[in-house]
Amino acid sequence: MNPEVLENVMLRALTRTLSRSPFQYNGLLESDAELVRVPGVSDLWLAATTDAVVEEIQTGLYADPRLLGWMTVMVNLSDLAAVGAAPAGILIAETLTHGMPQKDIEEMQRGIAEAVRTCGTYVLGGDTSVADHREMCGTALGFVRAEKPLTRCGCAAGDFLYLSGPAGTGNAFALARFTHADPFPFFPVARIREGQLLPGRASACMDTSDGLLATLDQLSRLNGIGFEIDSTWEEALDQASRSVFSGAGLPSWISLAGQHGEFELAFTMAPAREAVFLEEAGSIGWKPKRVGITTAAMGIILPINGIPHTIDTQAIRDLASRFSGDLNGYITGLLGATTPLK
Amino acid sequence: MNPEVLENVMLRALTRTLSRSPFQYNGLLESDAELVRVPGVSDLWLAATTDAVVEEIQTGLYADPRLLGWMTVMVNLSDLAAVGAAPAGILIAETLTHGMPQKDIEEMQRGIAEAVRTCGTYVLGGDTSVADHREMCGTALGFVRAEKPLTRCGCAAGDFLYLSGPAGTGNAFALARFTHADPFPFFPVARIREGQLLPGRASACMDTSDGLLATLDQLSRLNGIGFEIDSTWEEALDQASRSVFSGAGLPSWISLAGQHGEFELAFTMAPAREAVFLEEAGSIGWKPKRVGITTAAMGIILPINGIPHTIDTQAIRDLASRFSGDLNGYITGLLGATTPLK
Repeated sequence: MNPEVLENVMLRALTRTLSRSPFQYNGLLESDAELVRVPGVSDLWLAATTDAVVEEIQTGLYADPRLLGWMTVMVNLSDLAAVGAAPAGILIAETLTHGMPQKDIEEMQRGIAEAVRTCGTYVLGGDTSVADHREMCGTALGFVRAEKPLTRCGCAAGDFLYLSGPAGTGNAFALARFTHADPFPFFPVARIREGQLLPGRASACMDTSDGLLATLDQLSRLNGIGFEIDSTWEEALDQASRSVFSGAGLPSWISLAGQHGEFELAFTMAPAREAVFLEEAGSIGWKPKRVGITTAAMGIILPINGIPHTIDTQAIRDLASRFSGDLNGYITGLLGATTPLK
Repeated sequence: MNPEVLENVMLRALTRTLSRSPFQYNGLLESDAELVRVPGVSDLWLAATTDAVVEEIQTGLYADPRLLGWMTVMVNLSDLAAVGAAPAGILIAETLTHGMPQKDIEEMQRGIAEAVRTCGTYVLGGDTSVADHREMCGTALGFVRAEKPLTRCGCAAGDFLYLSGPAGTGNAFALARFTHADPFPFFPVARIREGQLLPGRASACMDTSDGLLATLDQLSRLNGIGFEIDSTWEEALDQASRSVFSGAGLPSWISLAGQHGEFELAFTMAPAREAVFLEEAGSIGWKPKRVGITTAAMGIILPINGIPHTIDTQAIRDLASRFSGDLNGYITGLLGATTPLK
């Protein structure tokens, strides 16, 4: 796993000439949301994250305007959830097209309104432009009270790997949409309430917006560790999503490999903290799923048909960076990214 | 001035179904940056603003990638300046085109790096996408310590109208660029340091990003007041900008009417506060210009060739909303927006 993935190479090149703020807790790539000290207040951090919905519009994945509005909010709130922030609200810059039907605009605004209401937060402001293309850019803001904020960094070998909820829904939605199968309902809810239980308990956290395997790849690189997935991992899959993949003749692990994730949280936790954490989670009706363990050796090991396989997560992420609409070629690439462990 | 301008009508329609946050100080349109209470800290406000650069790319106005990077930062920092915030940093979502020359990307990043350095702040994070179009979306974040934050609302008849610096540069740049005249240098600097002197002194403030006359129109609507511009207003114009307009055979007041403003601050102040304020401004080497007075009667009055004229600022703003690249038609429209006062 030595060579860097294409996406990270590009980000490092783009930011090469930029200085980091001395008031920022996290370095580049180290956190789902940027964490900046609130001046004059100890242990209080502003969490901020921006995410533009671009490729999902261009490829037609979010052709439903209500979903587009919903996702513009949720992809950003999910990043706040991953640092355990309480949301203060979201800003949305909308680029509409000339002559966009009024009905589409209303549906998009409905998706936005429903999403912020679902997460108990607000649209604070925004910007509106009209152009030849459509684009939506959200920026979510929140606050974290913690001496040492939760980021993607901090897990150690032996920590348990947890998933906040069922995996595979994001990729099942994308597969159904691109193969013209029956529509797969997909309105994911950012794990805001759950995320707020994690600071002080979890050792690292990242949302699965790019799929679980890409998430584990990034956590692995940042922490210099690996992951061994439990033999029972398929129990953590969303059942309807499994059917979409089996219906397409694909093994269910591909639902973790595709780049359109489910916006759950993947987090690690020292075994000693588990009992208290599970009690707290239970008190809000939340049943996170333990799906693996952190290992000192780098690399990601997943049992497929009972046989442990190493997964080339770099190849999986680079396939995503290069994706140009050839779904069959992409899936063939994913299928080739496993090697049985000797 | 009773009917609402098109831009505001659209914004009210888009936000009709959205609730405002109970922690937000300002209402819709009432502030250049959104002001949200920092939890648990009295008198501390998070200031946040998002602005996408879209039309300026589509029309070719910001064809220079270094300028595009610079402006993505400055248009947002200028909104922070208008509420007197100390910047915490900026997030930038970049949509690059497939095969965009490496040199252009580097120049754009250089513009970003120079702009944040000039204003003593930082890029905190961002997002990168690749698509068939180019777009840049910035979100600036800052903090304001004030019992009652400075917004666009709060001025009263009799308050003086001030401008933070020379007017006309933004429109001179646009005119030169669209008429293929000699390039007009334009790298405006957000009035961050100056803006921080204003809370507690100024009664209302707004940046001139859409040109001074559109700014006064918005302040007028929000506060139910009018403005009478001093007979000496031409002294507040940038001299090089005047030459661009006179060279094109246009009266210099058009440099206040075009929609590409100069990113100065327009602010109002009760006469009783003026002496102390000017002393404080002088102590940082700043010479703001008094250009008019706030009136109880609505409407904007500007002396042209020594004769007071009322300006139809609604028509001016609606021309901007409808602008589709026909520069001559646009300027003809602007020229028709004055009526000599009887």
